[in-house]
Amino acid sequence: MTEQVRIKLTRGVPPVESFPTEHLTECAAAALAEYGDVVLQYGPSRGFPPLLDLIAQEETAVPERQVITGPGSLQLQDFCARLLCEKDDLVYVEEPSYDRTLTVFRRAGARVVGFPLEEDGLDVETVEKRLRQGERPVLIYLIPDFQNPSGKVLSEEKRRRIVALAREYGFWIIEDAPYRKLRYRGAELSALFDLAPERVLFMSSYSKLISPGLRVGYVVTPAPLADGLAKMAEDTYINPSYFNQAIVYEFIRRGWLEPHLAQLKSLYAARLDAMLAALEEHMSALATWSRPDGGFFIGLTLRRPVPTDELLARALDYGLVLSDGRGFFANGGGDGFVRLPFCSLTPKECTAAVARLAQVVESLEEE
Amino acid sequence: MTEQVRIKLTRGVPPVESFPTEHLTECAAAALAEYGDVVLQYGPSRGFPPLLDLIAQEETAVPERQVITGPGSLQLQDFCARLLCEKDDLVYVEEPSYDRTLTVFRRAGARVVGFPLEEDGLDVETVEKRLRQGERPVLIYLIPDFQNPSGKVLSEEKRRRIVALAREYGFWIIEDAPYRKLRYRGAELSALFDLAPERVLFMSSYSKLISPGLRVGYVVTPAPLADGLAKMAEDTYINPSYFNQAIVYEFIRRGWLEPHLAQLKSLYAARLDAMLAALEEHMSALATWSRPDGGFFIGLTLRRPVPTDELLARALDYGLVLSDGRGFFANGGGDGFVRLPFCSLTPKECTAAVARLAQVVESLEEE
Repeated sequence: MTEQVRIKLTRGVPPVESFPTEHLTECAAAALAEYGDVVLQYGPSRGFPPLLDLIAQEETAVPERQVITGPGSLQLQDFCARLLCEKDDLVYVEEPSYDRTLTVFRRAGARVVGFPLEEDGLDVETVEKRLRQGERPVLIYLIPDFQNPSGKVLSEEKRRRIVALAREYGFWIIEDAPYRKLRYRGAELSALFDLAPERVLFMSSYSKLISPGLRVGYVVTPAPLADGLAKMAEDTYINPSYFNQAIVYEFIRRGWLEPHLAQLKSLYAARLDAMLAALEEHMSALATWSRPDGGFFIGLTLRRPVPTDELLARALDYGLVLSDGRGFFANGGGDGFVRLPFCSLTPKECTAAVARLAQVVESLEEE
Repeated sequence: MTEQVRIKLTRGVPPVESFPTEHLTECAAAALAEYGDVVLQYGPSRGFPPLLDLIAQEETAVPERQVITGPGSLQLQDFCARLLCEKDDLVYVEEPSYDRTLTVFRRAGARVVGFPLEEDGLDVETVEKRLRQGERPVLIYLIPDFQNPSGKVLSEEKRRRIVALAREYGFWIIEDAPYRKLRYRGAELSALFDLAPERVLFMSSYSKLISPGLRVGYVVTPAPLADGLAKMAEDTYINPSYFNQAIVYEFIRRGWLEPHLAQLKSLYAARLDAMLAALEEHMSALATWSRPDGGFFIGLTLRRPVPTDELLARALDYGLVLSDGRGFFANGGGDGFVRLPFCSLTPKECTAAVARLAQVVESLEEE
């Protein structure tokens, strides 16, 4: 085999060429000049007040005290897990789901149960059946928009059904929405939070929209949970960095977020399209996959599953680094599932990655 | 009573006039210019490599992989608690100790037991007695230098005795050292870590040395714990902000930390001296107190304890906001203990605060 540069299809990281470094430099200077005394000091755990206010007003129109910022939404999920879950409590998730979240809830002692994803998202019927049979989850964790790792979108009808179930059976919904604003085409669906603000914890972050290195995420919570989460945060890290939050605030206040999002969408749409075209060309006989209109991922399932260890090892032989698909499956399994993060690859790399993946699968099928 | 501006004797925050805002602005610009692609991206959970290297080489001369940075040392204590403590495990602490740490260990399920502080620090004799009787703590949490909240320093002899006990009985020592570099006079004592690097987790942060708002702390751990702590961090927040860590790194690399520390010491020493002089003048008949050579706190004990609720309420009447002393006492009690954080008050405010405190105590004694 000829030497070739490895292509990474591992985690969902944005490409470095997407970082608005010059603008952030200006925002950092402005944050220190205008709010130096505040952002360099300790403060209440909810976060930098102007950013809290902006999130409360512009995104969700809730009282500011229901907004809690933190160093990324995973950390906020950890607080939710520790606050809401007693040992052996049930947590429902999509299957596959975000592997790090599964770890967070298991670490808090919860029993995590996965429900299959259909073309239009979560299998709500099975969820309903289990609830009618008497199961009582504390919460369900969902990524309704461009789900990680599948790329799927929860349909409008299913959004309404799941919030109705949450109301009927009294469980919380964590709506993790880091990709919601990265829709490259098609119409936005309702946020679960807007359908049932008293039952839904809406989470997002600026990691995929501006830069992961700033570590600024947030949760908008139902009122009864807000003080408990803020206390959990205070007792863990006192407060998140207001400096980083002031940089985000300045970036948005200057009107730079919207044009930046437009740039990201055009950058990522071309990558998505290149990958979809390559899949069509090389993988039709070998796999099925989602066709998302946004986000970071295409989820692919091999028609003839292959043990993951073999798949990963063979992929490396072909210069392709894959994630372990099994990590996304709460109930076990996952052989033959491949997450394809396309945003940090150029269109050429997307095409090459898929061509190599086809070679990998063909070589395994021949054995 | 005449209207007067309230004086806060609550938490140990540095004064805003101590923040090197202009230098930090320059460091932020440099961090983005020189390492923008790295510091704005995700990365391994241990932190920004040049800072890890600097801490490993300059402070402790350990392999870099034993250094883990995070958003403040409290968060790192939370990781230690979750990694090391099973439910009902014993954790030893000084009494009084840092109230937030007590919360962190209790939240992890540990039974926290306090040991009295003598003039020269922890009552090691009682610790030894309990160990000989068969108690087996997982760890002891100590703040050997200018302890929070008492201001006391663990003597050199006791440092050697406690590490010998840790070796004999196989428990870990968490050495929390945020004030170690803020010594205003007298000679530095041995770090516990240097006495027993295989038993001690050394923690510190730049919150008190540069700015709390950057949220950069670190732990230097014995080798067997390093990977577990790094994994715990990754599973909680993926990585801390490299951007903030690069700012700290640039600040140190430019040689600005040492002169900045010299400035802080001269600023804080004057405040400490003013407070000590005022205590001598107003409180000799009413209380005893520590006479630290550094740090943020003087710990004061009333000769005739007063119920804390009454003390706090009466103090407010006199324009003085106090911390609840009971929060520092793991075994209960704490009435009549007052923590006096002097760094964020001017010498004049230090004098006024103590004069008011004397009035408060006198007014309560008269009843």
